[in-house]
Amino acid sequence: MKKGKFLTLEGVEGVGKTTHLNFIASYLEQVGKKIVTTREPGGTAIAEQIRGLLLNHNDEALSSVSELLLMFAARAQHLKEVIKPALEAGKWVVCDRFTDATYAYQGGGRHFNMGDIAWMEKFVQKGLTPDKTVLLDLPVEIGLKRAACRSVPDRFESEKQFFFENVRQVYLDRAKAESNRFCVVDASEPIEQVQQSITGHLDELLLDDE
Amino acid sequence: MKKGKFLTLEGVEGVGKTTHLNFIASYLEQVGKKIVTTREPGGTAIAEQIRGLLLNHNDEALSSVSELLLMFAARAQHLKEVIKPALEAGKWVVCDRFTDATYAYQGGGRHFNMGDIAWMEKFVQKGLTPDKTVLLDLPVEIGLKRAACRSVPDRFESEKQFFFENVRQVYLDRAKAESNRFCVVDASEPIEQVQQSITGHLDELLLDDE
Repeated sequence: MKKGKFLTLEGVEGVGKTTHLNFIASYLEQVGKKIVTTREPGGTAIAEQIRGLLLNHNDEALSSVSELLLMFAARAQHLKEVIKPALEAGKWVVCDRFTDATYAYQGGGRHFNMGDIAWMEKFVQKGLTPDKTVLLDLPVEIGLKRAACRSVPDRFESEKQFFFENVRQVYLDRAKAESNRFCVVDASEPIEQVQQSITGHLDELLLDDE
Repeated sequence: MKKGKFLTLEGVEGVGKTTHLNFIASYLEQVGKKIVTTREPGGTAIAEQIRGLLLNHNDEALSSVSELLLMFAARAQHLKEVIKPALEAGKWVVCDRFTDATYAYQGGGRHFNMGDIAWMEKFVQKGLTPDKTVLLDLPVEIGLKRAACRSVPDRFESEKQFFFENVRQVYLDRAKAESNRFCVVDASEPIEQVQQSITGHLDELLLDDE
């Protein structure tokens, strides 16, 4: 039985997900919520091993079908071990990426059929979806420049700009189609303004929860 | 374009798959076939890493949903890197376990819906199925006794006898439903008799191939 709230952060490389995830966690803690912050792919020992297969450059090229199945395998483990128990204990879960990222990266980026992704989503999540999703939106070229300053690119970050344009477009399409769940935040604004915008959405969610 | 033949060996623990796989490979090589022997889960560097997650005992319990998705993730990689290229090059592929094992272990043993497994099979294999499947059949208690003498049991081998009774039953049901593809061999017979029986089936397949 779900009692806590499930928040996810989405966006392409370099939009500032980590910074804003920490901000959201602090803000919610200040108002007395018990918080679990986590990430996908990953979040458990086994799921982090799957993350390694997904993100690292291997001598062998990972097939896109395998990539999609590994994403959901990691998610199944993460849901069972971390997300569901936390929500059932009344905690708020704040997660860096979730299934919207699969639609965006594997659907938009790799051109998988959205219906096939939807089938797997239903099979793995059995109806459990985020209560609120913050989409940090940014023109792709700005995000990629920011990400490039950060570290050696992983398997996904090594993709071309065109790939990320498709990823961004699917994110925006999903946000439009599920406007109640999504809040789209312009991540090109100064950080204080981004956080003020996020705070407004969190306050709405807190009001709903009372 | 598929040119070679795809053979799989199936059966519960302790039926002698490894011994008979080597026998089949030698027999086919003697008649001039180019052979690739491989196994599931595994068969490529990435798929063998997935095998580790599936078979090893971890501190964290692997969810059965994750297990099923990992099986197919490993299979997608194995098909792309090993099985399809070999078949297209006219080689014969002899594989220790394939999708029938998923129906038997995850369907029979873990009670997954067979329709869901069939959906994933279609998604991953896109119609590619074995030309011939040798099911080495043995009463479960005999197989388990043989397997116990061999090594420390892996995650699957640690299951109870009841689990393997369900696995065996699904294997036998599938063999009955697809009697053209399957040949069921009584693995409780002396090894020479088992191999004679396998040879008969291989000769039929070789005649078809001429």
